[in-house]
Amino acid sequence: MDRRGRAVSRPGVYLALVHYPIRDKTGRTITTSVTNLDLHDLARTGRTYGLRGYFVVTPIEAQRALVDHVLSYWREGRGGERVPQRAQALSIVRPVTDLDAALDAVRAEEGAAPELYTTCARDRGEALGYAAAAARIAARERPVMLVFGTGYGLADAVVARADVHLAPVRPRGYNHLPVRSAVSIILDRLFGDDGADGAP
Amino acid sequence: MDRRGRAVSRPGVYLALVHYPIRDKTGRTITTSVTNLDLHDLARTGRTYGLRGYFVVTPIEAQRALVDHVLSYWREGRGGERVPQRAQALSIVRPVTDLDAALDAVRAEEGAAPELYTTCARDRGEALGYAAAAARIAARERPVMLVFGTGYGLADAVVARADVHLAPVRPRGYNHLPVRSAVSIILDRLFGDDGADGAP
Repeated sequence: MDRRGRAVSRPGVYLALVHYPIRDKTGRTITTSVTNLDLHDLARTGRTYGLRGYFVVTPIEAQRALVDHVLSYWREGRGGERVPQRAQALSIVRPVTDLDAALDAVRAEEGAAPELYTTCARDRGEALGYAAAAARIAARERPVMLVFGTGYGLADAVVARADVHLAPVRPRGYNHLPVRSAVSIILDRLFGDDGADGAP
Repeated sequence: MDRRGRAVSRPGVYLALVHYPIRDKTGRTITTSVTNLDLHDLARTGRTYGLRGYFVVTPIEAQRALVDHVLSYWREGRGGERVPQRAQALSIVRPVTDLDAALDAVRAEEGAAPELYTTCARDRGEALGYAAAAARIAARERPVMLVFGTGYGLADAVVARADVHLAPVRPRGYNHLPVRSAVSIILDRLFGDDGADGAP
């Protein structure tokens, strides 16, 4: 509440799953495919942790159209009647052309550009730990965009734009976490402690 | 090390994903289908957190055969050559007929029956929190079996056998986490703090 007792909405937290520009095994830049699986799993997890939007970033128009098709089945079609929780989850999904389109959408909606957080399975040395990141986000005055890569991770061009680099989830030893797991674990580390009703 | 300086292996931690007996939406007992997705994702996450085995529990012989077929492609076939990390992940997967077969396998391997931990999205009131569960597991003298359900959760007959009920990951508000997310979050809450090399 502000001083006049009006409900004040805090800046939102958003997620972007990037399909271009992405590194392949050899470090070259590629475009990965959107998967139905990432659509559902990240929407369900994102909605459970109270995210305000989940941007599916791909330059391929046919894949954005495919996402729209899936969304309409669940939002307006028979899927949502059968599993209303799933319709709620998928309500946060937004297909966009590139990361700038996602940042623009948040800026238009919230009146401020989001801080950009990137994540990486490899240790970059300059990364922020999760307790510090959770505190920083809890005290935010701007929206937050958490950016995740597919394939072998975000291209350097995306990582270079970050305001904050989050530490790797498993910095040492074997790490072959699916992006679905990494998103789940990172959202829980950032927003999971209170066990509260979603909104971070 | 023991007193003679020999390496002593601690009791292992195992995971079971149960496809029968499972609750459906109305509370009736059903058998769910094994999915390729759960096979890969839980193996990758389980291996990353150092689990010693991941039991895929289904009474349907054709589905266990399907699991074996997928495993052989990744363990001995071309998949493993192309992505060696994936072969390592899938090396922990073991299809079994029922939960007792999983418990028997652990008992045979470790010389002691595992403690049974169940998980549930619904709040049962008598549940152990994650800090306490992590401490209990860290001090264990017996192996541990973490049991996860598919569908709308484990049937009461399974839950009734548990030594420990883990608290729901999101006890309040909207919760539509995929089992893949729940497993990831729970393993991270139990074993993730040290950032160490896997073995819990």
